[in-house]
Amino acid sequence: MKFFFTFFVMFCFLAAPAAEIAATPAPDFGREALFSVNNLWVMIGAMLVFIMHLGFACVESGLARAKNCTNILFKNTMTPAIGFLSYAICGFAIMYPNSHWLIGHLFGFAGWGLHNPPGPAIAYNGMYTYWTDFFFQGMFAATAATIVSGAVAERIKLSSYLCFTAIYVTVVYPLVGSWGWGGGWLNTLHFHDFAGSTFVHSVGGFAALAGILLLGPRIGKYVDGKAMPLMGHNMSQATIGVFLLWFGWFGFNGASALSANPAIVSLVLVNTMLAASAALVSAMCAGKLLLGKPDLSMTLNGCLAGLVGITAGADCVSVLSAIIIGLVSGVLVTCGVLLFDKLFIDDPVGALSVHLLCGVWGTLAVGIFSPEYKLLTQLIGVAAVGSVSFGAAYGIFFALKKLFGIRVSETTELKGLDLVEHGAEAYPGFQFFSNM
Amino acid sequence: MKFFFTFFVMFCFLAAPAAEIAATPAPDFGREALFSVNNLWVMIGAMLVFIMHLGFACVESGLARAKNCTNILFKNTMTPAIGFLSYAICGFAIMYPNSHWLIGHLFGFAGWGLHNPPGPAIAYNGMYTYWTDFFFQGMFAATAATIVSGAVAERIKLSSYLCFTAIYVTVVYPLVGSWGWGGGWLNTLHFHDFAGSTFVHSVGGFAALAGILLLGPRIGKYVDGKAMPLMGHNMSQATIGVFLLWFGWFGFNGASALSANPAIVSLVLVNTMLAASAALVSAMCAGKLLLGKPDLSMTLNGCLAGLVGITAGADCVSVLSAIIIGLVSGVLVTCGVLLFDKLFIDDPVGALSVHLLCGVWGTLAVGIFSPEYKLLTQLIGVAAVGSVSFGAAYGIFFALKKLFGIRVSETTELKGLDLVEHGAEAYPGFQFFSNM
Amino acid sequence: MKFFFTFFVMFCFLAAPAAEIAATPAPDFGREALFSVNNLWVMIGAMLVFIMHLGFACVESGLARAKNCTNILFKNTMTPAIGFLSYAICGFAIMYPNSHWLIGHLFGFAGWGLHNPPGPAIAYNGMYTYWTDFFFQGMFAATAATIVSGAVAERIKLSSYLCFTAIYVTVVYPLVGSWGWGGGWLNTLHFHDFAGSTFVHSVGGFAALAGILLLGPRIGKYVDGKAMPLMGHNMSQATIGVFLLWFGWFGFNGASALSANPAIVSLVLVNTMLAASAALVSAMCAGKLLLGKPDLSMTLNGCLAGLVGITAGADCVSVLSAIIIGLVSGVLVTCGVLLFDKLFIDDPVGALSVHLLCGVWGTLAVGIFSPEYKLLTQLIGVAAVGSVSFGAAYGIFFALKKLFGIRVSETTELKGLDLVEHGAEAYPGFQFFSNM
Repeated sequence: MKFFFTFFVMFCFLAAPAAEIAATPAPDFGREALFSVNNLWVMIGAMLVFIMHLGFACVESGLARAKNCTNILFKNTMTPAIGFLSYAICGFAIMYPNSHWLIGHLFGFAGWGLHNPPGPAIAYNGMYTYWTDFFFQGMFAATAATIVSGAVAERIKLSSYLCFTAIYVTVVYPLVGSWGWGGGWLNTLHFHDFAGSTFVHSVGGFAALAGILLLGPRIGKYVDGKAMPLMGHNMSQATIGVFLLWFGWFGFNGASALSANPAIVSLVLVNTMLAASAALVSAMCAGKLLLGKPDLSMTLNGCLAGLVGITAGADCVSVLSAIIIGLVSGVLVTCGVLLFDKLFIDDPVGALSVHLLCGVWGTLAVGIFSPEYKLLTQLIGVAAVGSVSFGAAYGIFFALKKLFGIRVSETTELKGLDLVEHGAEAYPGFQFFSNM
Repeated sequence: MKFFFTFFVMFCFLAAPAAEIAATPAPDFGREALFSVNNLWVMIGAMLVFIMHLGFACVESGLARAKNCTNILFKNTMTPAIGFLSYAICGFAIMYPNSHWLIGHLFGFAGWGLHNPPGPAIAYNGMYTYWTDFFFQGMFAATAATIVSGAVAERIKLSSYLCFTAIYVTVVYPLVGSWGWGGGWLNTLHFHDFAGSTFVHSVGGFAALAGILLLGPRIGKYVDGKAMPLMGHNMSQATIGVFLLWFGWFGFNGASALSANPAIVSLVLVNTMLAASAALVSAMCAGKLLLGKPDLSMTLNGCLAGLVGITAGADCVSVLSAIIIGLVSGVLVTCGVLLFDKLFIDDPVGALSVHLLCGVWGTLAVGIFSPEYKLLTQLIGVAAVGSVSFGAAYGIFFALKKLFGIRVSETTELKGLDLVEHGAEAYPGFQFFSNM
Repeated sequence: MKFFFTFFVMFCFLAAPAAEIAATPAPDFGREALFSVNNLWVMIGAMLVFIMHLGFACVESGLARAKNCTNILFKNTMTPAIGFLSYAICGFAIMYPNSHWLIGHLFGFAGWGLHNPPGPAIAYNGMYTYWTDFFFQGMFAATAATIVSGAVAERIKLSSYLCFTAIYVTVVYPLVGSWGWGGGWLNTLHFHDFAGSTFVHSVGGFAALAGILLLGPRIGKYVDGKAMPLMGHNMSQATIGVFLLWFGWFGFNGASALSANPAIVSLVLVNTMLAASAALVSAMCAGKLLLGKPDLSMTLNGCLAGLVGITAGADCVSVLSAIIIGLVSGVLVTCGVLLFDKLFIDDPVGALSVHLLCGVWGTLAVGIFSPEYKLLTQLIGVAAVGSVSFGAAYGIFFALKKLFGIRVSETTELKGLDLVEHGAEAYPGFQFFSNM
């Protein structure tokens, strides 16, 4: 504008009044409004992701026995707290190193703590502020840890779980995340994971697998080579949790557009809505076929499976592809739950089937259904992220096991973690049958 | 800028194409921002409507007995899934036929599936995208079916309920909806139903009535001509549900403005807030007067009644009228619950009193309190929608009854639908008194 | 650009119609969009505050015994209803008297009822409409009353509680609020309470203290000078409540910016997120140190304590200060709960420790951590608001006690308020141990 004005004055008529008008332009309300609305949606999306933590707390506690309910609620309340703080201390800086790459495009670090760069907010990023960026990404970070919580439920020591969470969210999650979302080598390869089928869900799922393998199954889960049902104590709570997760997922996927761009966000939302619906239907049918009756917990896991499945490609597949991805996810999760039981891998809430299997499936589906991306690249991403996150999680759990032990004593497990670890039941006053 | 400068030089010395400068303006951030914010609010409103499905699940399961809780949760989880999918397949195209009317302005069909029209998103509708439109309307569609779920609870076969839902959401709901919101004959008559007292709530309520009449009352509900209390098992859950419904209703009504227009949306929200409050107070008082004590479930239904009542006219009545509409709704729902019991119409959750009675009342109230609309037209709309939706629902339920049966066996009903239909209780571990 | 071009044409050729073009400018989409997005965020923020009422209902009922659960749910459902209506009738007009101050800057009144001032919505306030203003402030008003509900739980008469709420929200809350947010004398003194550590939380907390002192402890709480544990019946519900409160607090604090200003709102959200996290960690540690085990209810109260603590200064302290404020809040609430028990002040849910102690602490923290504000002024504000709200609440409860009695009979208390006051249990069917 200024340059133009200078030129205008110099070149044309040396006219005075015109200059003044052009030199004091009206504030650009349009640009400010666009910045505000984009920023607003990312903030609201982050709040929706926040409510997913309550969703996880409800699903996991609902699918566990009453005697371990307080313990799960405690873990799932502390997980976001620890996650947010550790992400603020250095996780955010590892995940988004900007130009500060230290080892190739494998590991970078932008510095300790949070530092709002100087200059107007709008300059940080045309879409949202630095704080909004942290707010949204911090919510995501804590999600990965929460996935582990359910898989290791009913037998892990509280202290070991909290240690694991702190380390995993501080280092491992942001490290592998930086490869894709932070501009690292997977990003260079044109690997696509829109909202985190891989970077969040399978990163959580692989850690869950490592934890389960090192912990072993719960007492009484496998008797004479057969899986016994250890029923969750509260299906209402589990259902509330699944609905809250679905609700929150609209922010998880929708705000991963990192703007309020109407065309992109609304397509993402419709894909998210329909993939989950399709997965609910296919999981219901698969449950009916394989178990004889339409099982509620299987069906609920179907919903989550569809959501995990569509997360990687919600922005780049058609609505019909989203429905197919969902249908497959619903079948996959049902078979997964049965399969893991055959392998004596005791996962109380089905976290492996939901987050690991469908996280991998969703990431590969991008290579299948979107012409823009290659299946091979997607495979490379899954393998790289999987091996590092499984390896790291196994290492951390293994070290904790050697140093402090990660499993509660047999008497604690039988009595319930609530009384022994926290000195308080979840439902004082209610009468229970034994072993619940 | 550069382009303009080049052009300027050209203009000064060749002085011809000035008009063309104006024809290629800078990007209009203001218009883009306005489109984004309108679209954003409709998307968020849709998410709020989504959470109403959880609200319904909580209210209905909380007000039913524990032995049928899993079944209700299952139904209310599958309802949105089936609703979204069937609305995508053809419901949306029946409800909004645009120019594709086939029979007068009574029935139209825009074609199978979802098809984002070509051109920029902003061209579809100055306010929101095609996908946002579907996202919002799809959420609404599934709501109508959910209303039925509670009314037929504790005795309907799962398979019959799911069939009914699929057919009703696919055909009946969009058909009558097209008369008003799709630009059909009721719209031409200047019938006004802002957010769906008629098109959603009484459409659901009439179907509920048809279902109840064909199912008959639950075993043990009416003994020697007197209504017995079959208490809901969990008032905390019912209360959570009502709050979530109220919360979601801010999106249901607020985003029915189909833009983020500050003046309209904020008035709608205040009317919604105060009508529900007034209904809570009047239902509490009516409960105290008629039952001797302020009953929680009656009062909670009062809240929902006020919300249903204000839904038709939230945009066109004054705040004082909204309070009056709410006060009447609260009394109406209380009397309704008592009246239906006198008529041996067994509605476990009070859905008829809430959605049918107050849906009709709210629609008529538009004709009473708003000078813009005529009571007679409102009556015509209620009668037309009511007769078609009741007739269609009765027909569907009747056909299902003849073909497969719609009611579970007596032993199933006594044992509870959870164990028989799903093979799993909602609260394993908790000890219950018999018949709960 | 267009304008400039027009001017250029005018200047160059002295063309006549140019003036007319400038006189009828294109609609300013940018300004309209900015108004819409600011207004939208305040409306959504208000909805988030609304969901806090459900959060309170869950926390308070979860931390009480099952036999009083219906009663608490009833109170917490009626509280927002009464609060919204009474705020509409005159509370809003007392809190924001604009120019209508009657007694110094101590008391003003803008007139009965709600009156949307004439003129375009944008003229009321560049940021949001009159209705949005009421919607947001009305949500806040009802919050203060809800705080009292938990503190007086399990022994207060329903009618007395409802009377108290109506009077307190109608007169006392808006009166002291007008001193700060309504432009009164505390505002003139440059007292800062961003979102209500004082004006909402300690106003609620002081009333809670008055109620507790006049009611006395629950039967069985203090035996032989020792505090007995009267365990809450449902820790899942309490946890759900805390998460909903944290979720809602993003609106409570975030929308207190009264615009969607990206820089301010996003900083507020990050401070809110991290203060609560820090308080969770410090409350967990304090609980472990003081009680031997990490207690869930203590930790949950820690979360709320951090949220109350950061509320006054979320807009003006650094992220590091927010973390320190949170850490202190978490310790403070834990010590508070133990201290009040030593003083035989029976607060079933820890409302005094959360809202009163941390409300005061948060307000003073503004004077400590923000260079803009003085500790002395903050102290004056706390003392003035505290003495008036405690005095008024004590007066109202005292008058109610003399007139009707405020405490239920001993038999009612032992049997539970649910059966006696409401004639219905919260969990019919479930078997309980006695005294729950």
